[in-house]
Amino acid sequence: KKRGFDAHVSSGEVHTVIGCVGGKIIDPRDIELLDGVKEVKTIREPFRLASRDRKSEDTVIEFENGVKIGGANRPVAMVGPCSVEDDYEGLRQVAFAAKELGCQFLRGGAFKPRTSPYDFDGLGEKGLQYLAQAKEETGLLVVTELMDSTDLELVCKYADVIQIGARNMQNFDLLKEVGHYTKKPILLKRGLSSTLQELLMSAEYIMASGNPNVILCERGIRTFETSTRNTIDLTVVPLLHSLTHLPIIIDPSHATGVARLVHPVSVAATAIGADGLIIEVHNDPPHAKCDGAQSQTPEMFAETMKVVNQIRPYACR
Amino acid sequence: KKRGFDAHVSSGEVHTVIGCVGGKIIDPRDIELLDGVKEVKTIREPFRLASRDRKSEDTVIEFENGVKIGGANRPVAMVGPCSVEDDYEGLRQVAFAAKELGCQFLRGGAFKPRTSPYDFDGLGEKGLQYLAQAKEETGLLVVTELMDSTDLELVCKYADVIQIGARNMQNFDLLKEVGHYTKKPILLKRGLSSTLQELLMSAEYIMASGNPNVILCERGIRTFETSTRNTIDLTVVPLLHSLTHLPIIIDPSHATGVARLVHPVSVAATAIGADGLIIEVHNDPPHAKCDGAQSQTPEMFAETMKVVNQIRPYACR
Amino acid sequence: KKRGFDAHVSSGEVHTVIGCVGGKIIDPRDIELLDGVKEVKTIREPFRLASRDRKSEDTVIEFENGVKIGGANRPVAMVGPCSVEDDYEGLRQVAFAAKELGCQFLRGGAFKPRTSPYDFDGLGEKGLQYLAQAKEETGLLVVTELMDSTDLELVCKYADVIQIGARNMQNFDLLKEVGHYTKKPILLKRGLSSTLQELLMSAEYIMASGNPNVILCERGIRTFETSTRNTIDLTVVPLLHSLTHLPIIIDPSHATGVARLVHPVSVAATAIGADGLIIEVHNDPPHAKCDGAQSQTPEMFAETMKVVNQIRPYACR
Amino acid sequence: KKRGFDAHVSSGEVHTVIGCVGGKIIDPRDIELLDGVKEVKTIREPFRLASRDRKSEDTVIEFENGVKIGGANRPVAMVGPCSVEDDYEGLRQVAFAAKELGCQFLRGGAFKPRTSPYDFDGLGEKGLQYLAQAKEETGLLVVTELMDSTDLELVCKYADVIQIGARNMQNFDLLKEVGHYTKKPILLKRGLSSTLQELLMSAEYIMASGNPNVILCERGIRTFETSTRNTIDLTVVPLLHSLTHLPIIIDPSHATGVARLVHPVSVAATAIGADGLIIEVHNDPPHAKCDGAQSQTPEMFAETMKVVNQIRPYACR
Repeated sequence: KKRGFDAHVSSGEVHTVIGCVGGKIIDPRDIELLDGVKEVKTIREPFRLASRDRKSEDTVIEFENGVKIGGANRPVAMVGPCSVEDDYEGLRQVAFAAKELGCQFLRGGAFKPRTSPYDFDGLGEKGLQYLAQAKEETGLLVVTELMDSTDLELVCKYADVIQIGARNMQNFDLLKEVGHYTKKPILLKRGLSSTLQELLMSAEYIMASGNPNVILCERGIRTFETSTRNTIDLTVVPLLHSLTHLPIIIDPSHATGVARLVHPVSVAATAIGADGLIIEVHNDPPHAKCDGAQSQTPEMFAETMKVVNQIRPYACR
Repeated sequence: KKRGFDAHVSSGEVHTVIGCVGGKIIDPRDIELLDGVKEVKTIREPFRLASRDRKSEDTVIEFENGVKIGGANRPVAMVGPCSVEDDYEGLRQVAFAAKELGCQFLRGGAFKPRTSPYDFDGLGEKGLQYLAQAKEETGLLVVTELMDSTDLELVCKYADVIQIGARNMQNFDLLKEVGHYTKKPILLKRGLSSTLQELLMSAEYIMASGNPNVILCERGIRTFETSTRNTIDLTVVPLLHSLTHLPIIIDPSHATGVARLVHPVSVAATAIGADGLIIEVHNDPPHAKCDGAQSQTPEMFAETMKVVNQIRPYACR
Repeated sequence: KKRGFDAHVSSGEVHTVIGCVGGKIIDPRDIELLDGVKEVKTIREPFRLASRDRKSEDTVIEFENGVKIGGANRPVAMVGPCSVEDDYEGLRQVAFAAKELGCQFLRGGAFKPRTSPYDFDGLGEKGLQYLAQAKEETGLLVVTELMDSTDLELVCKYADVIQIGARNMQNFDLLKEVGHYTKKPILLKRGLSSTLQELLMSAEYIMASGNPNVILCERGIRTFETSTRNTIDLTVVPLLHSLTHLPIIIDPSHATGVARLVHPVSVAATAIGADGLIIEVHNDPPHAKCDGAQSQTPEMFAETMKVVNQIRPYACR
Repeated sequence: KKRGFDAHVSSGEVHTVIGCVGGKIIDPRDIELLDGVKEVKTIREPFRLASRDRKSEDTVIEFENGVKIGGANRPVAMVGPCSVEDDYEGLRQVAFAAKELGCQFLRGGAFKPRTSPYDFDGLGEKGLQYLAQAKEETGLLVVTELMDSTDLELVCKYADVIQIGARNMQNFDLLKEVGHYTKKPILLKRGLSSTLQELLMSAEYIMASGNPNVILCERGIRTFETSTRNTIDLTVVPLLHSLTHLPIIIDPSHATGVARLVHPVSVAATAIGADGLIIEVHNDPPHAKCDGAQSQTPEMFAETMKVVNQIRPYACR
């Protein structure tokens, strides 16, 4: 009662249930510490700003050029190489191919998280400049990853959408800083073994820091299956649509790690009602500096977009 | 060399690689035991009869009434209550609804695996008789689960397809017995945390015992996500189609555990190219004896079949 | 109220909490189906006979020769090859080595669950006879696995402790049959991805069928780590000791899959308070028909027993 | 061969094995992209500086006051509250209790990673000052967490050991920055679902950036078991001791999330050969601002240290 709860007691033979309403969100384990308490079950979702309960209409994110993500809008496509490489011509080819197929976004990493310190980790600002140049030539909006708060200003200067990678999903300082510094849309990737509640709590960090424009992204979770890089959890699309008003996109490239599986997963993601796809496309996958194995060629991608467009009218939602 | 391998040695500064071909399949850990061996990497898949390498054309399973599963055939639908209950009229209603929607199979458990010994565990032979009666009235083929070798003869008498549940996927004696006793098709469900290779090894058990008619079924795997009962891994459809010639169907009911999620998952499973769906439909879910929460009503199911039929022409494969 | 619950209502601004006591254990998802119900949280453990709440004193299992498992008794050791092989002399050597080191049980499989149908799967009754012969020579009690109800009578004839393997932990028919047929102690291994509650529900199956003599066994769970065969969860020892009155033993051989790791895990298991160890020891591991990689030699095992005995006086509990 | 490898070919009926030695570490998936390549198996560990192969003697980290971690040295104990709170007296009490029990380190967070943006996230610099004050009074060395590169200079000013938390284990920029900026020892916690190889690759990041003083820490991994916060993987101790020369400590507090389980896990961790323990101790757990449920009282901790000291002489290694 000291914490503001209204308590109602139901006494049974073995256990007593105390229903509590009102009061502040707290760590339930603090109450479990008290003598005579067996366990505490929480009823309310711990996220607020991201919750569909608080805001029933879909969040629609609109860009200067009129492109929109979320709600009843046509699903978007974010396309490009894993990392921007020192070959502007390759990037340009992919960008023009994407543009012609009706895509709205060019993706590409200038700062790359790599498991090994000995791998190629991106061109840095030069990569961002290449993306800007491709944007100027094609009109595509730029999606690129921010890995560290040190590069916040730089990345914001070039990006239309700022990506927070799966391994940074619970880098809480970065979430706060990016939410505080900019209102540009943040593409937040689900962590490798995160629950949906944890994903939404990370979105909450960004929103509570001042930026309501969050796009959620499922990119596959870690499971015991080893034939694919990760396991895509497509049920998150209808589930997140019921839990939150934020848009949800799917990344079939990281989810599978295998170029020939990107097509069927893209089709299924569209059918289940995703608000968009983010796909790795490279003009020459066998010579890509990063993730060639999961990159589609522009030809493969064109075929994927054809089927995705056919499926769209029958998609769920 | 004693084991029949041809060995070729590549000597490096730190490690020596010995490439071995020919020879019998063995437990690689036996070789790792030898002095000087750091690790053994296997090249060949340990399954043979189930492998696409050995049989490149799709296995098509054909029933007496002309219904076919697999290959280029129209995806099938297996529909019915979780367990057959002591209300034949309810089962009849669901069976006729399924029949009218073009479904080919009636599913229902007479022997039910339940986590608790205190839960309803099926009607036994009476349940099988109800299924037979509904088959006679509707012409639908019967799918039902076998849990123990003791019931093998009985279940085979009534079933057109014999289901082996997820918790029995590695009940190797049961796999051998069922493969030995019957050539009726076996619907083999993937275990809760099994890899695809383990699933295929279990199919191999049935096939090596004499029954080549195995239908694989993905019903969701256990992950850290708690909003759904399990997590459906839809990528298995194209993956299994490349690894094996056996047909693959999807169970969206157990995968999600939530009736309203069965529809979107069914649509996505169709889009990605599944050879069929197995769906729990109950005439009165709130009063179902088992799994009411994940059962569609006949009306919900009719809506699902409508969208599934619309998607089919554009499905992958 | 129809189901016998006493309900007390706490109304909040957003949610209403209804505390329910009394009533029968039910599937909470059935209530979640009702209109207006967001979720149901259960308070009571679904296991009864296995619960420490119902029986506070430790279950102690006593054998005809006076050996005891559980409670304040000295932890036991179950020792022997993975599978009984067609070399009685080898088995005899291991049995005598175990006997001399003060062990009480000889373990060995006559029926072996193997992932591949092409692997050695045990000697069958001949294996059981070898175990009986070694028992006669050494006085060690026999622990061996039952895989299928067909072999129930045969295995009970030879075994002092009947093992149910990890892959059969949720083979509910087998649990019921073994509980019904015999009162000999059942060694129940935790499934590869089972929760402790599921393990206890499986123990409950055996107990509710009439056999209260269940020994729980942790043998490692599946995780993402690939350097070991499984990951041993040693915290289950104190946790299970608080949840249940049944004894808990540890299997370091299957947990690690690596002979040189069996020693440190055995020592840690003893320190944390396990009621016993079950360890694979083979007289000639490189030529073992099964699991040679994880088998200790008698010499390694003697060293392990030495340290285990030193640690015992300081063990938890 | 272009990449510097020496290739030896073994041709079989079905597959051809090409053994490659020499050459540079590359992404094996790049080779799998080539026509005719089924799969690539890597032989060498991708970590170098952290590898036991490269440096066979244990790394021993020595502090100005003579305290040492690693090798044959007595295991250390790092003790203190989850977060430093606005009550210096409480911190002081814990520090003196730890000092008296022979502990060498005071732990406490000034910057706290919290899943929710609405939770207490630490006192910041004031918390660091409190730690410094307690160090001056007791002589204990200070262990505290760095969450963001912005605070690098500040944290280095006060900390003797800089902790990188589990959620930042793959925050590669932070690893590089901390490795570049300081030679103070880094306590690197294993991520919630990381493999040991990933942990060692993250250690490699720090070492490759110039700081060889890395202490590895197992703090529990995420599994399906929900009775504990995480699942401690104690086998990592002997495994990491064989893979790397770096010291390994265990965190029983986060591993279990339950104060009464901290004692048995500490005892088992000592028995299996850990180089130290890091334990949350709070003078008044029910009123702790963070993680009260898993905090021992000074009295509980004294009992734990007593048994830990008794076990030490018999510990593995």
